[in-house]
Amino acid sequence: MNHIFNNSNMVSLEDVKAAHERIKEYTVHTPVMTSTTIDKLTGCTVFFKCENYQRVGAFKFRGALNTVALLSEEEKMRGVVTHSSGNHAQALSLAASLLGVKATIVMPENSPLVKVNATRGYGANIVFCENNVNSRVETANNLVDEHGYTLVHPYNDERIIAGAGTAALELLEDYGPLDSIIAPVGGGGLLSGTLVAAKGYTPSIQVFAGEPENADDAFRSLRDGVIYPSEKPDTIADGLRTSLGDITFSIISKYVDRIILVSEKEIVSAMRLLWERMKLVVEPSGAVSLAAALKMKDELAGTRIGIIISGGNVDLERFFKQYKLSSG
Amino acid sequence: MNHIFNNSNMVSLEDVKAAHERIKEYTVHTPVMTSTTIDKLTGCTVFFKCENYQRVGAFKFRGALNTVALLSEEEKMRGVVTHSSGNHAQALSLAASLLGVKATIVMPENSPLVKVNATRGYGANIVFCENNVNSRVETANNLVDEHGYTLVHPYNDERIIAGAGTAALELLEDYGPLDSIIAPVGGGGLLSGTLVAAKGYTPSIQVFAGEPENADDAFRSLRDGVIYPSEKPDTIADGLRTSLGDITFSIISKYVDRIILVSEKEIVSAMRLLWERMKLVVEPSGAVSLAAALKMKDELAGTRIGIIISGGNVDLERFFKQYKLSSG
Repeated sequence: MNHIFNNSNMVSLEDVKAAHERIKEYTVHTPVMTSTTIDKLTGCTVFFKCENYQRVGAFKFRGALNTVALLSEEEKMRGVVTHSSGNHAQALSLAASLLGVKATIVMPENSPLVKVNATRGYGANIVFCENNVNSRVETANNLVDEHGYTLVHPYNDERIIAGAGTAALELLEDYGPLDSIIAPVGGGGLLSGTLVAAKGYTPSIQVFAGEPENADDAFRSLRDGVIYPSEKPDTIADGLRTSLGDITFSIISKYVDRIILVSEKEIVSAMRLLWERMKLVVEPSGAVSLAAALKMKDELAGTRIGIIISGGNVDLERFFKQYKLSSG
Repeated sequence: MNHIFNNSNMVSLEDVKAAHERIKEYTVHTPVMTSTTIDKLTGCTVFFKCENYQRVGAFKFRGALNTVALLSEEEKMRGVVTHSSGNHAQALSLAASLLGVKATIVMPENSPLVKVNATRGYGANIVFCENNVNSRVETANNLVDEHGYTLVHPYNDERIIAGAGTAALELLEDYGPLDSIIAPVGGGGLLSGTLVAAKGYTPSIQVFAGEPENADDAFRSLRDGVIYPSEKPDTIADGLRTSLGDITFSIISKYVDRIILVSEKEIVSAMRLLWERMKLVVEPSGAVSLAAALKMKDELAGTRIGIIISGGNVDLERFFKQYKLSSG
């Protein structure tokens, strides 16, 4: 595939650039890391864009902040709501807090206390619901009806996508030109933003997506031209269990060069490389792009590739349990 | 204490600068990271010099490379030897390999296979010995006698110290002036190099050391003016179980402002902060400086401090065991 980026699309490179201007004061211009070991393993020169160092530990903060900043004054007065227990909840909480907007997060009543406290720590109000999708959606919708909150979707939103694209924009501004970029795909916000930014900035660039074999709904959706729901995704890459939305499906269908499926073993192996050799704390979803690069090494050999490490929020309790000390 | 650095000392700032010129082509100019969370916790502006990103995952590579580079041509022809199963062994192996020098590492026969393979992977020849200090020393000395190898001590050597000081030199060149720097102390190589570089570069700077309470031989040695051996050090900071040598004792006695003792719990807590909030894979020894900074927070409030993260080599098997997959 070879696409010329078209500004008439629903999100443009200009939107990503404008998002970057809007959010850069509050976001981390994340570092780009390299590794001679991984360059040897892949046969490429690899530039890792480390969004695990972004605020709240994930790229999600970029889109959440862009979205809250773009609300009308009236919407800001009323506040925002979302239902999530993951990175999006914390990203929206911090983004809202920084801009003086009230955030309410709907979480299942059995959510881990550490996540509840982290989200509260960023200043959000938590409303608990039952542990099922219907209750989450219904509770959030009731809050919208009752208080006039704006519901902020975690990925199927042009403002979220433009914000997510600022990671690839920074990578290309700092280390471009690159021959290709690889991003993971779950709901498709990061991949859509990366496509818009990369194909706009460097029309000849190839953009690949990594997706778990055990949650291959995006791969099948693109193959068949319809959005499949993500049914019982059995993957450790917990950030990639969601299905595409209509906006992300549309952008990805038009521009992505290929989706590479990777096994659970390949994800863990890539994650371990990032921890052991690069000393990066990366969540399983964040290792999926490297797993895809390793799978494509024959094809990519000799090229300059960018890999987006989406985040680093992983439960370390099990690791630190070994250090529990009897006294002191 | 307030010392004016004296160039007539056994290692000078000029030695550190010369070491930096000598090794910079092969070493990583490691990044400096910051964290708003940790700035809030300490009340300081903290600059973390991330030697966990150095080659072989620890600052040790700097001194090993400087030492091998300073050997005479005849010494280089004969080769180097050391007895160690830790970071120094890997550092010396890689340094020798890069400069075309043969390295032999004496390791106890019960060393973990992963360390044996890692050291071999850097090109060294391994000679096994019995699992006690006498056998290690005797085996190494026999190799020196038999083959004319040069024994490279892990820290009590001016060339090692000058190399270790290049980390603080880079930190001050990139982010100085700083009010203080904190480094961990075990055998004292990193602390000595940091003292020489920092007090030479910024005479008014304070340099503190962090040391485990459970391996407090340096603290007691400085207090009493004699070198105490490190007897049965019971600390998770495995890089800090060694005792001072005569050269490191002499430099540290003259220049260090204070040694701060930290408990095992404080070390683990600092390590967890670095992993969870900064997404850095850091070994226990590498967290000791932050533990000291947290302990000194009232005194350091409002100042700019540098913290040397000495390394990131930690056994991740226990963490990744949770991801062992039944199939795939």
